[in-house]
Amino acid sequence: MNEQGYLRHIHSCNPPITERFIPWLIGDQVVGWLRPWLVEKLDECPNVFDIANESVTLAARLESFDDRSAALADVVEWLAKQELITPPMGESYPVTPAGREAALCIMDRSAAAYFGVRAFGQHLNGFVRKNDGLYMWLGRRARDRLIFPGALDNMVAGGLPWKVSLEENLRKECMEEAGLPENVASQAVPVGLVSYNRVAERGYRPDVLYCYDLELSPEFAPQNTDGEVESFELMPIEEVARLVRETDEFKLNCNLVIIDFLLRHGYIEPQEEEYLDLVIGLRRPLGASLKPAGE
Amino acid sequence: MNEQGYLRHIHSCNPPITERFIPWLIGDQVVGWLRPWLVEKLDECPNVFDIANESVTLAARLESFDDRSAALADVVEWLAKQELITPPMGESYPVTPAGREAALCIMDRSAAAYFGVRAFGQHLNGFVRKNDGLYMWLGRRARDRLIFPGALDNMVAGGLPWKVSLEENLRKECMEEAGLPENVASQAVPVGLVSYNRVAERGYRPDVLYCYDLELSPEFAPQNTDGEVESFELMPIEEVARLVRETDEFKLNCNLVIIDFLLRHGYIEPQEEEYLDLVIGLRRPLGASLKPAGE
Repeated sequence: MNEQGYLRHIHSCNPPITERFIPWLIGDQVVGWLRPWLVEKLDECPNVFDIANESVTLAARLESFDDRSAALADVVEWLAKQELITPPMGESYPVTPAGREAALCIMDRSAAAYFGVRAFGQHLNGFVRKNDGLYMWLGRRARDRLIFPGALDNMVAGGLPWKVSLEENLRKECMEEAGLPENVASQAVPVGLVSYNRVAERGYRPDVLYCYDLELSPEFAPQNTDGEVESFELMPIEEVARLVRETDEFKLNCNLVIIDFLLRHGYIEPQEEEYLDLVIGLRRPLGASLKPAGE
Repeated sequence: MNEQGYLRHIHSCNPPITERFIPWLIGDQVVGWLRPWLVEKLDECPNVFDIANESVTLAARLESFDDRSAALADVVEWLAKQELITPPMGESYPVTPAGREAALCIMDRSAAAYFGVRAFGQHLNGFVRKNDGLYMWLGRRARDRLIFPGALDNMVAGGLPWKVSLEENLRKECMEEAGLPENVASQAVPVGLVSYNRVAERGYRPDVLYCYDLELSPEFAPQNTDGEVESFELMPIEEVARLVRETDEFKLNCNLVIIDFLLRHGYIEPQEEEYLDLVIGLRRPLGASLKPAGE
């Protein structure tokens, strides 16, 4: 694989998965993927899960959103008590075969990572038009952050808890991370999403990042208020593109958000040999690169 | 399936494929899909094709671009003489496992349709910013056109022959279809692509449409010069969205180009229940929805 170029970041976010995961269904819709040890354990909960040969299905008797959520909360508590999973974080994630709005129930964020359910985030491209071209605001992550300390980041980026609407969460993140007042943040334009599938320590990890563009006045300078960002820098878009192409300075998934920006704004052109792979590769279906059942 | 909504158009462009197609390879890369009758026929060309159980591979002795193209041209002529395929059109299409730039050889456009190779096109969204919002220029296809007579169309749209560069072809189409002078057409921004896979009369049909946005001055009005467009209309973007959602007034694949535009410009919002399916569904990998070999 190339040591340089855009495509390697898409590959890094979607590594080939050799480990076996078992699909987890609600009704006939896949909502997650489980490691075999967890499936064995869930077999001890016969009223909550039906374990078949190559799949795990939430018991059909759990008919409502609340019934399902309550049953899963009990299972999560039971697993955490045995120290098989990390303790609940008290923050809920949607369990869904598609987008957030199609959630069939919720489960604790910490446990969700073991159950291979989709995680949703929001990333914002803050940019400025000057006479000599487009500039992009980038954040430098604080050195004390757990993941990617000191790496470059989108101007605003954050995870999406269940209880908060997309607009509300984006406004909150814009204020906390960049000191963007509400009247500016509300001008952010939703421009699509990137998605990728990988394996993390706790389990299968399908991620969806909603992407936003926000054009800022040349007078505005972002200011961090929550300690997560060490500093901000306004960089010519060509230099941002070069950093993505030639270095690993960015937090891994931010590369994908910026590649999407470069594609949408014509900075990566269709003459590029990798153009198709880039445009198609930025949006991987849930469950992609997993081995089919039985193999 | 819904009679309304955006997603139905993506489904219409990617119908489930029940017919059997056999992958056609150059080296170890799939470049097309063939109907069984064509494979049987190609078995009579042992120096050009190696027919295995579930695949057809171009003979390894054909090492160069030109060798491969020449050998295919002979096969095409031989098939056309037997009236098994329509006569050559004298226009070349790239044969490629990925984008145009990765072409491994060329073959006649008419024959390419039987060999299930990718076809490439360019579609341009012409839009105007007014005080009360965004407007989009749409073309009404001439009533004497072979496909989708009288249907709505993107302002500029056309197929991509092999010998012409993307910029050159777009300029040419902009002039012929909409009377756009070169200095305006050259401001079109490449913004990505949509891709879909269907079955046409002649064979498997994977299409890639490169998409462009072009902001026009409110003073400019497009004028058709080649007789392919009956008239142009400038429509509020909300009305364009409604027509896509609620009607079948557009030439089928134009719906996808406009849905992509609506997504990139924030007119379809991530709160929509179908958002993930729309963003991911607009870009289908080559060969998607085909049955794996041996089934």
